[in-house]
Amino acid sequence: MALDISPSSDRSARPRRRGHDPESVLSAAVAVFNERGYDGTSMEDLARALGVTKSAIYHHVPGKEQLLARALDRALDGLSELVADERATCGPAVDRLEWVVRQSVRVLTERLPYVTLLLRVRGNSATERAALARRAELEAFAGRLVEEAAAEGAIRPGLDPALVTRLLFGAVGSIAEWHRPERDAPAADVADALVRMTFEGLRRA
Amino acid sequence: MALDISPSSDRSARPRRRGHDPESVLSAAVAVFNERGYDGTSMEDLARALGVTKSAIYHHVPGKEQLLARALDRALDGLSELVADERATCGPAVDRLEWVVRQSVRVLTERLPYVTLLLRVRGNSATERAALARRAELEAFAGRLVEEAAAEGAIRPGLDPALVTRLLFGAVGSIAEWHRPERDAPAADVADALVRMTFEGLRRA
Repeated sequence: MALDISPSSDRSARPRRRGHDPESVLSAAVAVFNERGYDGTSMEDLARALGVTKSAIYHHVPGKEQLLARALDRALDGLSELVADERATCGPAVDRLEWVVRQSVRVLTERLPYVTLLLRVRGNSATERAALARRAELEAFAGRLVEEAAAEGAIRPGLDPALVTRLLFGAVGSIAEWHRPERDAPAADVADALVRMTFEGLRRA
Repeated sequence: MALDISPSSDRSARPRRRGHDPESVLSAAVAVFNERGYDGTSMEDLARALGVTKSAIYHHVPGKEQLLARALDRALDGLSELVADERATCGPAVDRLEWVVRQSVRVLTERLPYVTLLLRVRGNSATERAALARRAELEAFAGRLVEEAAAEGAIRPGLDPALVTRLLFGAVGSIAEWHRPERDAPAADVADALVRMTFEGLRRA
């Protein structure tokens, strides 16, 4: 396809100058992984999507799995940063939890393709298992926040903290399924609606 | 593999008597679709997973896309039934909404592999587009319930009904990502936690 110069081919659909720097290789690769699934994507497919040769990609990365690792780090680093922030570590647990939920929505929408990829990882390789381990640490952090909030008496009694954590961050993750920044409410509004719905409740008091 | 009778092959891993009735073909196919992705699964793969020949599968279904259609109907029929129920159509909208959320969790957990498949459909074929259209109708029904509940003054003011619908049913759908009936809380408990978290709110009043 890179050699197809017939006038009938849709040249406008071919990306220009992509594949010429590590960042564009990464972002194009993530788009292809999300569309076809990581396992279903070959370096050949990536080269075709980028409109470059395979060796042009190998110039930037040793292989497909390293692209996956970098992409997953992009998502995980964003989330790790926020749980290290003092707003996640100091103060009443219920307020920290609320802050973490809001910031998780922000990271998810800002790094949407990377977080989408992360949410689909199933543990099929060492890279995927490492990402799942980092993800599990983040979830454990969130779980402890809910437990602390419950212990501080700030959570409605009778709610199981583990279940609340699953459901709350499940709702956060589900935003990746539909949110398109150019079409939908800004991330801050989505986060605000989620926080109000889950912390204050839908039913009018 | 069906011809491999060497003693070293793991015969216990090969399903017995599957592929001999339409129901077992369907449930095995859905498991393979969910594992490899529908597009990445061939009739050859299905035959291998069932331990039967391709023609044994063709005895029950005309092809792969019909298996997908039946599987998606299994999920969609469960959800369609509940929105047709009078508990979804009569009474205060906020109570109907709560009932629909609870019942959606029940259908999701009872038909987990089928709903998982439905949630991954992207519209790559006529069958997938038909399923997405049915799914959109169900979501529109849920959206109207939230709007009616807001119009009846039962929803906390300032919450956008469309956003609430996305987030609420996003949280329902996320349960498919982690819930395993043999390991986790019963569906009714999960539904109860979700309803309490989203209708009453996490924060202790």
